[in-house]
Amino acid sequence: MLRPMPPTDSLFLLAETREQPMHVGSLQLYVPPDGATALDVRAMFESAMQEDHVAPLFQRRPKRSVTTLGQWAWETDAHFDLEHHVRRSALPQPGRVLELLALGSRLHSTLLDRKRPLWEMHLIEGLEDGRYAAYFKVHHSLVDGVSALRLLNRMMSPDPNERDMPPPWAMPPRRRKQRDGASNPLADGAREAVHLLGDVAGLGPALARTLSRAMREQTAPISLSAPKSMFNVPITGARRFAAQSWPMERIRRIGKASDSTVNDVVLAMCAGALRSYLLGMDALPDAPLIAMVPVSLHGEDAGSGDGGNAVGTVMCNLATHLPHAAERLAAINRSMADGKEALKSMTPTQILLMSAIGMTPLAVLPLLGLTGSVRPPFNLVISNVPGPREPLYWNGARLDGLYPLSIPMEGQALNITCTSYSNEIAFGLTGCRRTVPHLQRLLGFLDDELVALEDGAGI
Amino acid sequence: MLRPMPPTDSLFLLAETREQPMHVGSLQLYVPPDGATALDVRAMFESAMQEDHVAPLFQRRPKRSVTTLGQWAWETDAHFDLEHHVRRSALPQPGRVLELLALGSRLHSTLLDRKRPLWEMHLIEGLEDGRYAAYFKVHHSLVDGVSALRLLNRMMSPDPNERDMPPPWAMPPRRRKQRDGASNPLADGAREAVHLLGDVAGLGPALARTLSRAMREQTAPISLSAPKSMFNVPITGARRFAAQSWPMERIRRIGKASDSTVNDVVLAMCAGALRSYLLGMDALPDAPLIAMVPVSLHGEDAGSGDGGNAVGTVMCNLATHLPHAAERLAAINRSMADGKEALKSMTPTQILLMSAIGMTPLAVLPLLGLTGSVRPPFNLVISNVPGPREPLYWNGARLDGLYPLSIPMEGQALNITCTSYSNEIAFGLTGCRRTVPHLQRLLGFLDDELVALEDGAGI
Repeated sequence: MLRPMPPTDSLFLLAETREQPMHVGSLQLYVPPDGATALDVRAMFESAMQEDHVAPLFQRRPKRSVTTLGQWAWETDAHFDLEHHVRRSALPQPGRVLELLALGSRLHSTLLDRKRPLWEMHLIEGLEDGRYAAYFKVHHSLVDGVSALRLLNRMMSPDPNERDMPPPWAMPPRRRKQRDGASNPLADGAREAVHLLGDVAGLGPALARTLSRAMREQTAPISLSAPKSMFNVPITGARRFAAQSWPMERIRRIGKASDSTVNDVVLAMCAGALRSYLLGMDALPDAPLIAMVPVSLHGEDAGSGDGGNAVGTVMCNLATHLPHAAERLAAINRSMADGKEALKSMTPTQILLMSAIGMTPLAVLPLLGLTGSVRPPFNLVISNVPGPREPLYWNGARLDGLYPLSIPMEGQALNITCTSYSNEIAFGLTGCRRTVPHLQRLLGFLDDELVALEDGAGI
Repeated sequence: MLRPMPPTDSLFLLAETREQPMHVGSLQLYVPPDGATALDVRAMFESAMQEDHVAPLFQRRPKRSVTTLGQWAWETDAHFDLEHHVRRSALPQPGRVLELLALGSRLHSTLLDRKRPLWEMHLIEGLEDGRYAAYFKVHHSLVDGVSALRLLNRMMSPDPNERDMPPPWAMPPRRRKQRDGASNPLADGAREAVHLLGDVAGLGPALARTLSRAMREQTAPISLSAPKSMFNVPITGARRFAAQSWPMERIRRIGKASDSTVNDVVLAMCAGALRSYLLGMDALPDAPLIAMVPVSLHGEDAGSGDGGNAVGTVMCNLATHLPHAAERLAAINRSMADGKEALKSMTPTQILLMSAIGMTPLAVLPLLGLTGSVRPPFNLVISNVPGPREPLYWNGARLDGLYPLSIPMEGQALNITCTSYSNEIAFGLTGCRRTVPHLQRLLGFLDDELVALEDGAGI
């Protein structure tokens, strides 16, 4: 049986190329339960595979044929093969996080098989520290990045003694009632906007025209002039991924001392790190970099996990031309406040249009012809996705880290996605391997910048 | 600097799709030198990486642009990045050959990055038996399967004490003088045919027309009517690979007792195994399967490593409708003899045309429109590539096994490639994961068939 595919979902299939795979991913680290080993965690996943229960969404594959009038639709895969989707891998010695990130980079570089449901889960053993890892990969046409993280959160429990918990592929991803209590206005808002648009505007080309017009008209009040940068060039298919976590408390303290939000401080860390990285490559533009930042309009802070339903996208001036960390933070705080003020003056429908663009921006841009301009509309996307606040467990294995992998695109070679979990915030940097060399240096620069911001705030 | 790409090479780029990657591969097993471990073999490869010498062919990437008039050309990759091409992997526990084949299947399923030189080498640790493994993958537009195997042979030495030997990526693949003395008429003949055709017929479409005409005219005397089978359907992108070796002596003994060639016995093993497999799937066609088999015309036996320059392609009746192993072998022997006789009546140019089709058949077929017919021109390709006859070493590590991975294609879901090495013959079975389920069963059936052939020959 064929089900129609919402047009915004099919855009991710249409925009996908060899150089621009359209899947999101996440890397998870698990600490085995007391008395158990990493291989016991593997055995738990393998035992879950025997159950053979798979949520309908994860049994769906895309199909386009004469009978669908050339449009993409979903159909249930009659020959679903769980072993194709759940795979066992191992790290080469010495099995440090370095080897894990290298494997994650490679797994994130390859295209999903379109003849099958568009997801894979890789179970990864061989970490020297005794932890177990998993990489989960899902096509953006099936689940967006925020929903994918949510899905993983939902399969967890705050109770270390809970057992008989299903694996991620058995979880229906869009269930509204959440086990962990974290809400995700961004995802909900974008889904709704997308469906609204789908209803109103019909299929692909018409939708693209609508979004294009909305983009030009609505973003005018808050759009800034982005300089050319090394990130805004054609990309290749291989990826490099780097990730690290920092204590949320350090970021909160800087925010309090400088009257900024957590999200402002996260952006300032990125801004300073990008400045150092670009200086080192002798590639810092004179004008400040502009980041596209999805934000929540209600609630204090998009990074805190609170917020209502209204979401939007702000173009943030990262002030990378300023030499001092505290100055950059102040400029970012002003830019974000201005952007949010401008968003507040929009009608709900305008905001929904914006949010649709904000959540699905880069897949849509090529189709809108917006990438051909000399200047990029922005230099990179920095998302900060709120995650669960308390430690979570899967059948007794503690989730020790959760790192998002996102989608670099033609003209947007670097993506930064942050996600909070428990008392930490994880930065996931996904870049084109060729266009963004030495990506891992950014981790050191993020750390330097956090210290500089603490100094600047007198901490 | 751009170099023109021979049209037959560019056909492999043109014919490539997500479901039909056009790379060949090989899986190698190494026994560490006395007193050394598998990780020492890894260290040898890593040390070779430090040398940073890469043969020009392996620094070439494909390029197609306005300046090449839309044709594919080769250019040297100015940002060549050896770490992208040579990667370290590990097997999950328990690290049996089963886990190695699963990893090989997965590595063989993913597309190469076209923005870079079209090859990868994966160094694989974690085999429980103490051996070390490597998987080498190269695009058919760069090197054909036979040349790729030759390349690996050439990097080896029969001398276990030789050191300072270069890695495969440092070897120029087309050097005529070979270290191991094995000749490969198939590859040379095909290369020459291809270049002759390129000279005569010009670029792509003209070449395709020439090949198409040649195919129809020249194959008439030896073409057979192939039945529809489960292998001749559309394929998906994921692969399943299975491989195993048998002693050459067992095959030679059957050949002697039944007045057949080694190649006949290899084909008979495949025929019997395919019959059992298809019977088990309730999918055995009434009419016998037809295999396309590249052969050498001079020299006794294409499988023995001898032979001159003339090569051709024979359509072999596998006699899968006959219930007894000895009967099938006799029928295969007759079919191969008839086919070679027909080839001998052709002019050298006709044979060269045939050989070009024989070596590059399946990439060309879709372009010729030959896959649309109700009946496939043949059911599968079975190649038997002669390899080195003596044990070979790389810096003291003994090559213990060498298994070829080939290219399943649209309408040709299973490929069998055999290669001899030392006193064994390896069967490499590469199939579409969806279309050819339980591929590994064929290994057991090959073994059964070898026993049945021995029985039939009174051994």
